[in-house]
Amino acid sequence: MTVQRILIVSGTHGNEINPIWAVKQFSREENRLKHGIEYEYIIGNPLAFEKGCRYIDVDLNRSFKERENYDQQENIFYEINRANFLVDEFGINGSNPCNIAIDLHTTTANMGTSIVMYGRRFKDFCLAALLQNKFGLPIYLHEKDKAQSGFLVEAWPCGLVIEIGAVAQNFYDPKIIERFLIIISSLREEIDKLKNNNIELPKELVVHVHQGSIDYPRDEKGDIESLIHPERINQDWKMIKKGDPLFLDRQGIIQKYDGDQLIWPVFIGEVAYKEKKIAMSFTKKEVICFQNQWVQEFESI
Amino acid sequence: MTVQRILIVSGTHGNEINPIWAVKQFSREENRLKHGIEYEYIIGNPLAFEKGCRYIDVDLNRSFKERENYDQQENIFYEINRANFLVDEFGINGSNPCNIAIDLHTTTANMGTSIVMYGRRFKDFCLAALLQNKFGLPIYLHEKDKAQSGFLVEAWPCGLVIEIGAVAQNFYDPKIIERFLIIISSLREEIDKLKNNNIELPKELVVHVHQGSIDYPRDEKGDIESLIHPERINQDWKMIKKGDPLFLDRQGIIQKYDGDQLIWPVFIGEVAYKEKKIAMSFTKKEVICFQNQWVQEFESI
Repeated sequence: MTVQRILIVSGTHGNEINPIWAVKQFSREENRLKHGIEYEYIIGNPLAFEKGCRYIDVDLNRSFKERENYDQQENIFYEINRANFLVDEFGINGSNPCNIAIDLHTTTANMGTSIVMYGRRFKDFCLAALLQNKFGLPIYLHEKDKAQSGFLVEAWPCGLVIEIGAVAQNFYDPKIIERFLIIISSLREEIDKLKNNNIELPKELVVHVHQGSIDYPRDEKGDIESLIHPERINQDWKMIKKGDPLFLDRQGIIQKYDGDQLIWPVFIGEVAYKEKKIAMSFTKKEVICFQNQWVQEFESI
Repeated sequence: MTVQRILIVSGTHGNEINPIWAVKQFSREENRLKHGIEYEYIIGNPLAFEKGCRYIDVDLNRSFKERENYDQQENIFYEINRANFLVDEFGINGSNPCNIAIDLHTTTANMGTSIVMYGRRFKDFCLAALLQNKFGLPIYLHEKDKAQSGFLVEAWPCGLVIEIGAVAQNFYDPKIIERFLIIISSLREEIDKLKNNNIELPKELVVHVHQGSIDYPRDEKGDIESLIHPERINQDWKMIKKGDPLFLDRQGIIQKYDGDQLIWPVFIGEVAYKEKKIAMSFTKKEVICFQNQWVQEFESI
């Protein structure tokens, strides 16, 4: 097992301020090094944090693409340069390399504490299994979405997002901070148990696999013309079926879910996703059998 | 009684979006003219609304000062020009004059539905009494605060803010929208009843008078170093006394209220006030006897 350094990123979105508080509090109270694992702390987007906004030019958490995939113009964006800096500094080949990246986010949606994975990397499955085993957290597996790419943790060999809500942007909530503190302090303990064969991982992992996103109904000018239906608000992770209400317009007309599949919506009404034209994302529940290879790959990081 | 035209302003802060939705919905369903009173609707800060932020250059709701009080430099600010436009267009001497301005706001603090008055204008007392009588709404009387001036409604002979929360910035909440709809639709009905001597106003008005604001404890760099204490969060309008907790720092140290007066805090943790260095405002309860002159002045608008 060579996991030695974990990068803990807070404030990748500058208006998600509770993780920044939690990390600052944690780093004062705890040693950087414990169980042979060193935590490295960084604020993802310090300038956006200072200004109280999500980002300056573009979303930092969509800015970790292969460098050859950028337009020339994008080089002038603050977040593109910041993404490059973070990888140059803390990437696996960086000057201060970390094996794992944990990116701490909040959402205005009522997601509770959850894990977000990008794609099906075995190392990520191992880490997610450790946390799901410990806390029973739901896992949102994001994949096959061309409109959404370039996530921070994808630039590290292994990494997850911890996403906690509901909390408003720029609002300090002691309950939310407490939840982050629990995750940060447990993470290396769980890895340490795994290292010492002191833990039994579950036989299967339950994940909610991204199927796509739907936008608000909009008028010809692009303005939103229906709200999330009151029956959907705060009902993240709750299954819906054909005929269940999704949106409600000003005339009281209900738009219903008309798919045949059972669906578990997440990020319902997330404020920051309006500009991405996402009112909620649809997921499907999938049970994945545990594979020993997850642990083998994790241990060989 | 000459009240004929009421200006209903929504989106004075561009990220307070529920009033904008409510006004749009109301204006589709109801006639502009009813009970001899015409409603005029305007979005205060359309550019900030489009961008999803509170303001572009400066807070529009602090930009309605006497024109001679501006620096030369301020003329280039979008909001200063917008304030001038609104007064030129809808002010009492404007091209499309309104007698009363009602400015609709939301707050991230748990204020419920409340009325904000600026100073002790008799006409405002009359209007506030009508609404408190109908709905029992709490009234926050803002006065004698040199750090906060230039509010929109002060530029009209009569005007109030309706402030509803808690709701996150940029989040559409059907419950909040419904509360605005009730206020907008009742307002001219109540004025009509007054006009026809069809209403008995209460003998006294209960107001919460602004005493000052307190900032978060900050470190030498100006960073916030204590959070609102969990016992204070969501407890707007609830009385506190000496020794009650206000803030909690990372070491668990509590900062307590140490004044001798009983105090009713409001706007507790309002997100937009962090930049104004306000963690909460303190008010004192005052009972004001009803005066017939309130109605006389209101009727002579």
